Amino acid sequence: MATSSVESRLTALADLVVAAAKKKRDPEIVIPVRALSNVAFNEKRRIIEMKDATQARTFFNLGMAKKFMQTLLVADALAELQRTDCTTSLREIYYRTKHTLRDSTENTFDAQDESDPILEDLEVTLGALREELHVAAEGRGSVVGNIVLVDDGDTIDCTRAGKSGHTVASIVEEPDIRIRRCGADFILLVEKATQFNRLSEDKFWKRHNCILITGNGQPPRGVRRLCRRIHDEWKKPLYVLVDNDPWGYYIYSVVKQGSINLAFESQRMAIPDAKFIGLSSFDPEKHKLPRNVGIKLNDKDIARAKELMAYPWFQKKEWQKEIKRMLANGLKFELDALANKDFRYLTTHYLPKKLKDRDWLD
Amino acid sequence: MATSSVESRLTALADLVVAAAKKKRDPEIVIPVRALSNVAFNEKRRIIEMKDATQARTFFNLGMAKKFMQTLLVADALAELQRTDCTTSLREIYYRTKHTLRDSTENTFDAQDESDPILEDLEVTLGALREELHVAAEGRGSVVGNIVLVDDGDTIDCTRAGKSGHTVASIVEEPDIRIRRCGADFILLVEKATQFNRLSEDKFWKRHNCILITGNGQPPRGVRRLCRRIHDEWKKPLYVLVDNDPWGYYIYSVVKQGSINLAFESQRMAIPDAKFIGLSSFDPEKHKLPRNVGIKLNDKDIARAKELMAYPWFQKKEWQKEIKRMLANGLKFELDALANKDFRYLTTHYLPKKLKDRDWLD
Repeated sequence: MATSSVESRLTALADLVVAAAKKKRDPEIVIPVRALSNVAFNEKRRIIEMKDATQARTFFNLGMAKKFMQTLLVADALAELQRTDCTTSLREIYYRTKHTLRDSTENTFDAQDESDPILEDLEVTLGALREELHVAAEGRGSVVGNIVLVDDGDTIDCTRAGKSGHTVASIVEEPDIRIRRCGADFILLVEKATQFNRLSEDKFWKRHNCILITGNGQPPRGVRRLCRRIHDEWKKPLYVLVDNDPWGYYIYSVVKQGSINLAFESQRMAIPDAKFIGLSSFDPEKHKLPRNVGIKLNDKDIARAKELMAYPWFQKKEWQKEIKRMLANGLKFELDALANKDFRYLTTHYLPKKLKDRDWLD
Repeated sequence: MATSSVESRLTALADLVVAAAKKKRDPEIVIPVRALSNVAFNEKRRIIEMKDATQARTFFNLGMAKKFMQTLLVADALAELQRTDCTTSLREIYYRTKHTLRDSTENTFDAQDESDPILEDLEVTLGALREELHVAAEGRGSVVGNIVLVDDGDTIDCTRAGKSGHTVASIVEEPDIRIRRCGADFILLVEKATQFNRLSEDKFWKRHNCILITGNGQPPRGVRRLCRRIHDEWKKPLYVLVDNDPWGYYIYSVVKQGSINLAFESQRMAIPDAKFIGLSSFDPEKHKLPRNVGIKLNDKDIARAKELMAYPWFQKKEWQKEIKRMLANGLKFELDALANKDFRYLTTHYLPKKLKDRDWLD
């Protein structure tokens, strides 16, 4: 989507107010509803997506006037970002649009939790990703391996980016970031920095011709978008390596089909073909991990695991078995627990065996 | 310090036990005391450092036997890291050394909070930084600007590392990481990713010939060590850019003279010549920031600010004025609040004026 197009969509919001004013009508913005009621799992596309419900936001309505004003203020700031080709954060959007209304003590915004949802409203209304609106999310990642990126004119060969790798920006969209070449066979998305460090230090990406990428925890948007782009543009399979706990399953599921909260992004972020390469609840036994390196599931873990089992996207027989097994084990296992075998066990045994046996879940 | 030297110091611990056994004596390890009582600010060196108190850890003592055993287990794991030239995390050290004692239900370690302090004991006992022991801390940063690093044989020119930059590893020690060239005039250590992104996008480092580096919050050890190395090896001044709040002052003070908790690291981590380039409590007025983008100090902020004022390293007149002014303002200000002026205000006004006026605190 070209920048000019986003800018024109933003300007169109202002035009709509001008047009209404000229006709002495109440200006109205039609906004898709961002609520659980308007979200569904699309079985065919295998992503969580928004349904069609919308709501009107009008100005001549005591309950909506402030939000209407806020919507236009944020749209104005976003238009400024487009015009000046500048990227910012949610927090700065809040500061930029905050002021005290003339001859009053009323602020346009009192806290960031007022401006954040307005931005999400504008994302769905304009059909533009936050990244296209030039607003960066928090969180950065790192990448090493067989891929060459062009970032702001600089060519970055990730086979020569040291052990620590190139930083994955919060925004990895064209035209700023291009993928010039990708000779890898697959992408390995690693939840935690410890395992990324281990695999990078051991040059796992070289022996197995892949791309290693981490988001240091739940992958931030930039990491997800980069994986999606490599997957789409270069047709590379993606494997997700997470801890064996409900949070690990959740991280995988968000990468794969998107999240309920941000369902409108799934079509640009989700990777329905992503595979789960572990830790599986069956791995501790396969790899003879002692029970004392497992961590007892607490009540929250158990409740969360049961919740996950009920989601439409975890209905496959293998997934039900996987989650039931965790509950039966009564334990969760961190990837770090593989160090109990040997510091390099992940590199030399666990992953090679997984890949050889094609031992993953879909 | 060469790797062999660290390994031999680790092996010496085992030798000490063998020697004691041969003489039928109680083996004893002498460990410097890591406690507030054994920490002092060295006015001359301008760093927080440990004093000379030590304690003996012996095996034939019911209260110490377990800790003695744990100390040797961790030392054994650390020796393995040296022998195999492998780097790991605190969490994996815990998993590696955990097992159930034969014919018992007793674990060597029940939780990581038992193994972490043992590692710190070994750091001070052996006089080796955690990095030299091949244990990586959490947290990674990013760097762009006029510096060329060699990381694991790869040459990384940080003037060509895109907007997002090269990832700063958790461990940036020789011989893995070398600084091949540094043509910058200074280092700018930026607390938060938002400002790093802003300055990097605007190519601030090019116009002002510097190195931009961030740790995404409190700078992790790798970021501090890299700054220290550039400062020492290439004689570059360091400016620290943080929020105007007690936490910002604290971040600056840890970079400058080290922390009380990890006093034994100051001599390898602290940068006593570091300068504080803001946000200062006097900046909101200088830059005409409206009061409504300030955040009211809460009771904890006020207590913390008063605590900082009492530290020996904040006794300079200018610092007392600086902190008093924050208390008098009754407000703290985030760097993000500069966006209230203009999204690029930091790049085009705030920092250039600071540098021109030499408006920083020491």
